Amino acid sequence: MSPSKLEITRTISPKPLTPSASLVFGKTFTDHMLTIPWEMNSGWGSPRITPYGPLSLEPSATVLHYAQTLFEGMKAYRHDDGKVSLFRPDMNMKRMNTSARRIALPTFDGGALLELIKQLIRLDNHWIPKEPGHSLYIRPTLIGTQRAIGVNPPNEALLFVICSPVGPYYPDGFKPVALYGTSEYIRAAPGGTGAYKLGVNYAPGVMPQKIAAERGYVQNLWLHGPEHYLTEVGTMNLFVVFRLPDGTLELVTPPLDGMILPGVTRDSVLSLARDHSAGKYQLPGLSGQLRVTERPVTMREVQDASQSGTLVELFGAGTAAVISPVDRVGYQGQDIIIPTEADGMGPLSRPLWTELVGRQTGKIPSDWSVLVSE
Amino acid sequence: MSPSKLEITRTISPKPLTPSASLVFGKTFTDHMLTIPWEMNSGWGSPRITPYGPLSLEPSATVLHYAQTLFEGMKAYRHDDGKVSLFRPDMNMKRMNTSARRIALPTFDGGALLELIKQLIRLDNHWIPKEPGHSLYIRPTLIGTQRAIGVNPPNEALLFVICSPVGPYYPDGFKPVALYGTSEYIRAAPGGTGAYKLGVNYAPGVMPQKIAAERGYVQNLWLHGPEHYLTEVGTMNLFVVFRLPDGTLELVTPPLDGMILPGVTRDSVLSLARDHSAGKYQLPGLSGQLRVTERPVTMREVQDASQSGTLVELFGAGTAAVISPVDRVGYQGQDIIIPTEADGMGPLSRPLWTELVGRQTGKIPSDWSVLVSE
Repeated sequence: MSPSKLEITRTISPKPLTPSASLVFGKTFTDHMLTIPWEMNSGWGSPRITPYGPLSLEPSATVLHYAQTLFEGMKAYRHDDGKVSLFRPDMNMKRMNTSARRIALPTFDGGALLELIKQLIRLDNHWIPKEPGHSLYIRPTLIGTQRAIGVNPPNEALLFVICSPVGPYYPDGFKPVALYGTSEYIRAAPGGTGAYKLGVNYAPGVMPQKIAAERGYVQNLWLHGPEHYLTEVGTMNLFVVFRLPDGTLELVTPPLDGMILPGVTRDSVLSLARDHSAGKYQLPGLSGQLRVTERPVTMREVQDASQSGTLVELFGAGTAAVISPVDRVGYQGQDIIIPTEADGMGPLSRPLWTELVGRQTGKIPSDWSVLVSE
Repeated sequence: MSPSKLEITRTISPKPLTPSASLVFGKTFTDHMLTIPWEMNSGWGSPRITPYGPLSLEPSATVLHYAQTLFEGMKAYRHDDGKVSLFRPDMNMKRMNTSARRIALPTFDGGALLELIKQLIRLDNHWIPKEPGHSLYIRPTLIGTQRAIGVNPPNEALLFVICSPVGPYYPDGFKPVALYGTSEYIRAAPGGTGAYKLGVNYAPGVMPQKIAAERGYVQNLWLHGPEHYLTEVGTMNLFVVFRLPDGTLELVTPPLDGMILPGVTRDSVLSLARDHSAGKYQLPGLSGQLRVTERPVTMREVQDASQSGTLVELFGAGTAAVISPVDRVGYQGQDIIIPTEADGMGPLSRPLWTELVGRQTGKIPSDWSVLVSE
């Protein structure tokens, strides 16, 4: 997929831009898309940027039968000075290859794909909203397109990238969400695919999520095992903050045990918190001692902490919302109330959010920010 | 999806028939396909039979991102007198609706879809191979086609049916297969989707199956839990036959505990064996007492029976091979040898196979056989 072989066909009928105020996540797409075909014998073909439009797929294409699909979610941010950047895109390229290996789809040169994605963003640069909290959501996808319905590594595949301008996750300021602690259905299990960003992790969650919504909760909090270990939320990783007897805050997130997606935001939160904890860096406005731990957490522990007043906060971390505070968790017929402060956030989520958004939008210089255009 | 609204557009360039001897499973497709669109507001649209050809799908179609797909596998058999029949197709229609509910895809009138499938088969009737052991494999598929990458019940879907002429699973007579007892990867887990015929159950098995193949085994035998319970093979359900101290044969299959696909062949085997056991009917050539049990079986039990000489046989049951005898199972670095007789089969698999194939091909009259054309 050599970027030097890129062929660009510009649209002759550019679409009108959707007003930023009426953007709905994942509904509007830019003028162009990137496609790169793969074939078992010849490998990756020439990349093409063409007008956004339908794909022609044989009805026997294996993605349609056996769910041979994986994807990534990343964002391009417009800085106040007009520059455009991506946030740690190398992490997405690496994870996409890890996902590909797990379901026997072809791997690729992550640096080359990133360069091609930058070209696509530059071409559709005017689609990146200028308003605060807005961005361009980028969706690289890799599908098996073998024209024969055998269950095996496909002999044909297609990598495509589409882009969607998106508004802020919380247009009216932070709004904490309610999660439904779910143990009757699962998202992942040991030996399964929970640690990979595969399509197969999503379809099975739609029906349980409908049930959660009917009960007044926004998302499922997937619990594992008879101990009801917290895992993740499907669209976000989870963090819990406890206050220890000596006043230290303990930031806890479940370990990457094979059932949890290794989120880019998760990794960034841990990295910032650890650097703060080690004194290498100061999280803005955070005082007191901080301990950072990757360890299993049970619902019992969350419940006990809530009752004893040592539960400080619980929040999700992901590309869509960056940080998403939780104010209650439905569990075994009752609601566990999670503290939130007046702005909807908490003592640790607030500085983490400020720092992450600052780094994403160029307000805080960081080598996590990768420039796409000056 | 009213059959009375069916619109048929016949191909103007029929393809040459593939010689039966060179058929490879799932590679050749007939001249026509059936498509039925669904839309949240208006429901199922008019069914259409059109020339077999590519589907046009938006790159944002949810099937390509979140694996919103399910399918069925069924076969049309040509009888010696030229009649064509399906085998228990009502079971497939029912299961397809069960699958749809599990991932929030639209359900449908199974009788109506069956009628439409019959029309498709009649139109492509000349594609059904005449040779013994051959058939027309029918693949109804239902995909989410919403043009927006949100994880939710899709507002658009497409049901399509394609047909593929197939040869016998064992062209040179029965050949027992070797299975790889797999516990390091899983196919299903409690609370998951193992009991539904969804695309998501297949992509994750491709890489483990590659590993099994590299070690000399044909398929993974998926084991569950620390007890290593036998579950199924991914393309087949499993049956084990033990000889009890009094000489009775015990036919055992794991129960439908939510992790196992409720196979049509599995149900048929159980039904025939139970009727034999109850004296309502005589399995051809089977003498002696038979006990039929749905109960959990561990690898330890299979291993012990192999060592003590009470393991009679182990076989898979599915639409593709009907009955597939197993002659060894790789387990914890060793091979458990499973008895097979000179023809590759065993005392129970042989009469079951004979009876099932007889009923499928019209040689043995049965209400399981549903005529498509006279």
